[in-house]
Amino acid sequence: MSGRILIDGVATGLVPADDRGLAYGDGLFETVWVEAGRPRLWPLHRARLEIGCARLGLLCPDPAVLLDEMRQLTSDLPQAVVRLSLTRGSGPRGYAPPVVAQTRRILAASPAPATNPALLAEGVRLHSCATRWAIQPALAGLKHLNRLEQVLARAEWSDPGMSEGLMLDMDGRVVSATAANLFAVIDGRCLTPALDRCGVAGVARAWLLAQCPQIEVETLYPDDLQRASELFLSSSLRGVVPVAALDARRMGPGPWTRQLQALWQAMATDAAVVDGKVET
Amino acid sequence: MSGRILIDGVATGLVPADDRGLAYGDGLFETVWVEAGRPRLWPLHRARLEIGCARLGLLCPDPAVLLDEMRQLTSDLPQAVVRLSLTRGSGPRGYAPPVVAQTRRILAASPAPATNPALLAEGVRLHSCATRWAIQPALAGLKHLNRLEQVLARAEWSDPGMSEGLMLDMDGRVVSATAANLFAVIDGRCLTPALDRCGVAGVARAWLLAQCPQIEVETLYPDDLQRASELFLSSSLRGVVPVAALDARRMGPGPWTRQLQALWQAMATDAAVVDGKVET
Repeated sequence: MSGRILIDGVATGLVPADDRGLAYGDGLFETVWVEAGRPRLWPLHRARLEIGCARLGLLCPDPAVLLDEMRQLTSDLPQAVVRLSLTRGSGPRGYAPPVVAQTRRILAASPAPATNPALLAEGVRLHSCATRWAIQPALAGLKHLNRLEQVLARAEWSDPGMSEGLMLDMDGRVVSATAANLFAVIDGRCLTPALDRCGVAGVARAWLLAQCPQIEVETLYPDDLQRASELFLSSSLRGVVPVAALDARRMGPGPWTRQLQALWQAMATDAAVVDGKVET
Repeated sequence: MSGRILIDGVATGLVPADDRGLAYGDGLFETVWVEAGRPRLWPLHRARLEIGCARLGLLCPDPAVLLDEMRQLTSDLPQAVVRLSLTRGSGPRGYAPPVVAQTRRILAASPAPATNPALLAEGVRLHSCATRWAIQPALAGLKHLNRLEQVLARAEWSDPGMSEGLMLDMDGRVVSATAANLFAVIDGRCLTPALDRCGVAGVARAWLLAQCPQIEVETLYPDDLQRASELFLSSSLRGVVPVAALDARRMGPGPWTRQLQALWQAMATDAAVVDGKVET
């Protein structure tokens, strides 16, 4: 285990066994790319945390404290990834949330993984997963700690050349990849599935939707993907990633993918970008 | 935090922060009543753990080790409750299960809560929850660590006189209470909902079904419960508990409830019952 962990501000890699995150998955998380001490797209991460806390009835810590802890953990890393988890803290046995629950902050940093240029140039192969997202509007969109469906979906393949999985919901609608959001270009329109019934509303997806109002949120079925001229994924760590194949069907990155990759790249490499806004 | 905790056999109350149970709810648990060092209905708990491990692809620890650890933790307690969790252990960031995952055992014991005779005599009040169970056959029946739905359902009421909540699935079928299984007596038949689409298949429910083959597993809707002459709950800690009221509708414990309470009581108080079988 890495030593780069702060739990409620204390440098320790150990969590009390009665933590409700461990007991029930009672909490939320974010995976944040930190560039020279600056968490990329932090306002979007922070907004998702605040919405998640409100929906789960968790007390949200002061964002300034979270920001400070991310900086402490990554001060000697030019590029880092921080997993930031919030749990409902310690509590006695039983589902009932404690009347006075103390939200626990668990931040773990690691050096950022090297970007794979081939992956961005050529794209990833997508496996159609048998495991589906259950429909649960009460939790939809949140990056909460109940992630067994994605664990089971990701366990469906071990081929290292197959880097992502396509997941449908219980009604057979397209939702996302296992750890990224999905976009499809169909008849010249760029579409991404709605996430009000299940799925994780990614920060990179939110950024793309805000930057590019032409992208439409729409219901998609697997048959629609067969007609797509382009498919691509978004992830706050990997950015915009083309899909090179969906199962046996091969495809090449097209103009929408290239344009949004360029847009992401401009944001990601602009050292002056702080908190998601370009400083003057 | 109680000192009665063993993690992989070591007396510590601290879990590594990279545990996948904490990161993704990637694991299972059991809540076991231990009477004079003997875990009640252990073969049923063990069977559910083994089924859960098979379905999640976890390596199941030797049951003899679990049994020994439960006894160590409860040696000076006449009656205890042990929460026994199994997680996929530590792992790097990412949903993909590690190729070689070491299942982590987390056992925490506490003195058994005092039985409330009024609760068993008169019954509990049941609140109809707005939060529903998502339909997810891949996880249905298991007591896994993804329990946010029950946390949200249980958070719907704070009236201490209201002790349980009725939960439906997304299609409006009756599933269970938030922390107990449900039985309804309708037209003289004793019925309990199927749990192959969602819900937790409780050990007490399994025991009652095995003891009493007249109990039928059937699809139930809220309207059916309005016609029920009796409702009762089953839980491995509380046994058979009558329902005294469903929202505004009051009802009294009937003959089915009383008979199954007596059956449970005979099992629970028979000191010679070991491993669910009566010793000669």
